[in-house]
Amino acid sequence: MDKRWVSEITPKAEDFSKWYLDVVRKAELADYGSVKGCMIIRPYGYGIWERARDHLDRRIKETGHENAYFPLFLPESALKKEADHVKGFAPEVAWVTRGGGEELEEPLAVRPTSEAIICPMYAKWIRSYRDLPVLINQWANVVRWEKVTRPFLRTTEFLWQEGHTVHATAEEAEEETLKMLEVYRDFYETDLAVPVVTGEKTASERFAGALRTYAIEALMTDGRALQAGTSHNLGQHFAKAFGITFEDEKQELQHGWSTSWGVSTRLIGAVIMTHGDDSGLVVPPHIAPIQVVIVPISAGDWRETVLPHARDIFTKLRAAGIRCKLDDRDMHTPGWKYADWEMRGVPVRCEIGPKDIQKHQVVLVRRDSREKLFVPIDGLERAAADLLEKIQASLFQRACEYRDKNTTDVDKMEVFEELMERRPGFLRSFWCGGAECEAEIKARTSATIRVVPFGSDGEKGVCIHCNGEATNRVLFAKAY
Amino acid sequence: MDKRWVSEITPKAEDFSKWYLDVVRKAELADYGSVKGCMIIRPYGYGIWERARDHLDRRIKETGHENAYFPLFLPESALKKEADHVKGFAPEVAWVTRGGGEELEEPLAVRPTSEAIICPMYAKWIRSYRDLPVLINQWANVVRWEKVTRPFLRTTEFLWQEGHTVHATAEEAEEETLKMLEVYRDFYETDLAVPVVTGEKTASERFAGALRTYAIEALMTDGRALQAGTSHNLGQHFAKAFGITFEDEKQELQHGWSTSWGVSTRLIGAVIMTHGDDSGLVVPPHIAPIQVVIVPISAGDWRETVLPHARDIFTKLRAAGIRCKLDDRDMHTPGWKYADWEMRGVPVRCEIGPKDIQKHQVVLVRRDSREKLFVPIDGLERAAADLLEKIQASLFQRACEYRDKNTTDVDKMEVFEELMERRPGFLRSFWCGGAECEAEIKARTSATIRVVPFGSDGEKGVCIHCNGEATNRVLFAKAY
Repeated sequence: MDKRWVSEITPKAEDFSKWYLDVVRKAELADYGSVKGCMIIRPYGYGIWERARDHLDRRIKETGHENAYFPLFLPESALKKEADHVKGFAPEVAWVTRGGGEELEEPLAVRPTSEAIICPMYAKWIRSYRDLPVLINQWANVVRWEKVTRPFLRTTEFLWQEGHTVHATAEEAEEETLKMLEVYRDFYETDLAVPVVTGEKTASERFAGALRTYAIEALMTDGRALQAGTSHNLGQHFAKAFGITFEDEKQELQHGWSTSWGVSTRLIGAVIMTHGDDSGLVVPPHIAPIQVVIVPISAGDWRETVLPHARDIFTKLRAAGIRCKLDDRDMHTPGWKYADWEMRGVPVRCEIGPKDIQKHQVVLVRRDSREKLFVPIDGLERAAADLLEKIQASLFQRACEYRDKNTTDVDKMEVFEELMERRPGFLRSFWCGGAECEAEIKARTSATIRVVPFGSDGEKGVCIHCNGEATNRVLFAKAY
Repeated sequence: MDKRWVSEITPKAEDFSKWYLDVVRKAELADYGSVKGCMIIRPYGYGIWERARDHLDRRIKETGHENAYFPLFLPESALKKEADHVKGFAPEVAWVTRGGGEELEEPLAVRPTSEAIICPMYAKWIRSYRDLPVLINQWANVVRWEKVTRPFLRTTEFLWQEGHTVHATAEEAEEETLKMLEVYRDFYETDLAVPVVTGEKTASERFAGALRTYAIEALMTDGRALQAGTSHNLGQHFAKAFGITFEDEKQELQHGWSTSWGVSTRLIGAVIMTHGDDSGLVVPPHIAPIQVVIVPISAGDWRETVLPHARDIFTKLRAAGIRCKLDDRDMHTPGWKYADWEMRGVPVRCEIGPKDIQKHQVVLVRRDSREKLFVPIDGLERAAADLLEKIQASLFQRACEYRDKNTTDVDKMEVFEELMERRPGFLRSFWCGGAECEAEIKARTSATIRVVPFGSDGEKGVCIHCNGEATNRVLFAKAY
């Protein structure tokens, strides 16, 4: 029954990149329009985004943050205020130069990120230590001019949330930066079922203008890493550039300490490449727009005999808070429908036919393992809810196993190069901390240091590249 | 106790426009940044928007629509495809002419509305009558270059939802257009407590490219009308311009029939100007970020004696699903806090002091009427929830009364002119249907026809301007 789709989706092993694009297109997650690199997020893809967003938004609010909205545009002069920041972002900016029929006196950048828009407001709002901390988050679209794009992973416009906070002390800013990284880790692992490694970025991979950048890194099933979220301690760099000051308890003027952190629509790419298979998408139940699809066996007078029972089940499951859909389309066979919903990655299929009705049961089929379960209609809500949680846990378990199997400690450069060539993954190798070694390894293997993982310090070793002293095994990978 | 604020908020009767800006600023709803006409929606204002958005989003989904996301940019050539549409929007467009360090071959418009972005995709996706109807909504930011701006009411960038649907027949498109107008009416009246008049716009006020535009119109407390939401039947105009075709059941190629409809952050302006008073904002409970603020009476050892009880009440109300806040700030007196929360329009204040604790009661104070209620702590959740619904209903009631009192049937041009000059409001007058009469009335009085109200036809009369035959009393007002 999968045949139709197998012929339409390129097998993962044959061409991973083509497989990815096939899944995006066939599951109707996204499409391209007439503006290069700008993606259309179709309803099914957006449904996944909405659920993921709600989970993350709840966590952001539970940690004391409020949402707000800042303008799309910023004047060129504002972007230029923080020297490293403008150097990092200026090449990617889209510029508005005309508006309302006239040339603008000063071009406006379309926000690539909002530090330079938000900081001037914070400088205006913050007066006293009593105004601190400022804990604000924004859900918005941002634009970064990209040469090579891929839906969800790298697009000219994307959706994200960006948190921007100001604190009275360096310690509080660092605590906030790490707290939000932990929020991201928990969100990715609990709701997206995507395991991540947490740690600090090296200087060369730091956010433009940051003091320290932390990241969560996930391993995709082609062995390449995906930077899944970042949290930046901006120190006093932006506070000084934009004049964010406050009077402390001793009535002395101080500069604030700020942070920023973001997660984007890229998470949908992470979900596709972590859980998907040759039949298409597999959506974790927590973020599935449809958790259970009910397919009545359509033979003979099924609309009179089977369909009413299918409707009862739909009503029952929905009342229990399960997101479900009844596929009562006339024009397709059950087999066609099975394949269609498998491709879209609906976690559980619920089949019901005349024999099932006689036995007061339905057949539940797991998308992840294809396991079939015969379940009594009495108590189906409970069984379905339990099964969904079981699938969520087992997707995470499977992804952890893949990640662990593809994480290797490597101490010789020849082995490192060979592995990166043959079968990439996470390689844990000692590194001396030198930017030159990092750059040369990248030039030779195209692998980068994804993070210096938390808890990796203290072990003694020699740098895989220069044999210099090293106290960390860091995480290398080829990355998206 | 209101004294402090009375001196900071300009009285409504003295200068309505200044009063409005004072409320926006003092209640920390919005602020201006460095880009002209672009508004910052501060957390408290955004909290109102989030709740309103959730109420409307639920209704949009319940009527069968799904959310999606389309790009921010559209090529100049796409905007030009529908002749009336480009004529209407081109003067207001912001243009991106540089990106990634290079001049663009074709300038990109920042969306002022998304018909010209979405229609090409529909042309691609729709093949057969089986693909219809397409029922998609988008929550997004849009940009219209405005010369004169006012927070929430008219800003260069604003947030909104825009629905875009395609149907197989003219009848279905008309049905959809009216259905969404009714969704807007219900949302505005039920959740924002803002009464509206529904009807059709005249040709001169039609959306650029539409066959028919319907609107909901509200009357602000300065006697001026606010267009609160619009729903457009686009006929086949856009389907023909963008080639949206489908094969019908007889396998003949047809053009689709499309609609679009939108409501924006302007709704916050409607809430301010409908319910606000000289002490500031009054937020209807359904959309209030804080529904109940708990103020402990801070005297003596209140942190030991009163605060624990206030905390219990907070926990109890929150568990009952009431959005509440405990104001335990040390640095302010209860009186200062009362005024502060009044200004922010929190519907109910809950005071608790040593005497109340002895009597096992609290004092609830309504923001709308300032009525004081002594309520037992046992069963407070129920009493508070009931009171919130009562306030919601009475805000709507009061707004209806204001609107009705300021709606006048007028049959003489002199009276019309005098009323528009002296005390504006909704004037219901006969109109012949001629664009010239409409234009001349506007030139003389600056009043426009807000809508031809539903159900207004059939009555016989003579046009207030030309004395020609008329079959409708239409709704005139000066408008925002």
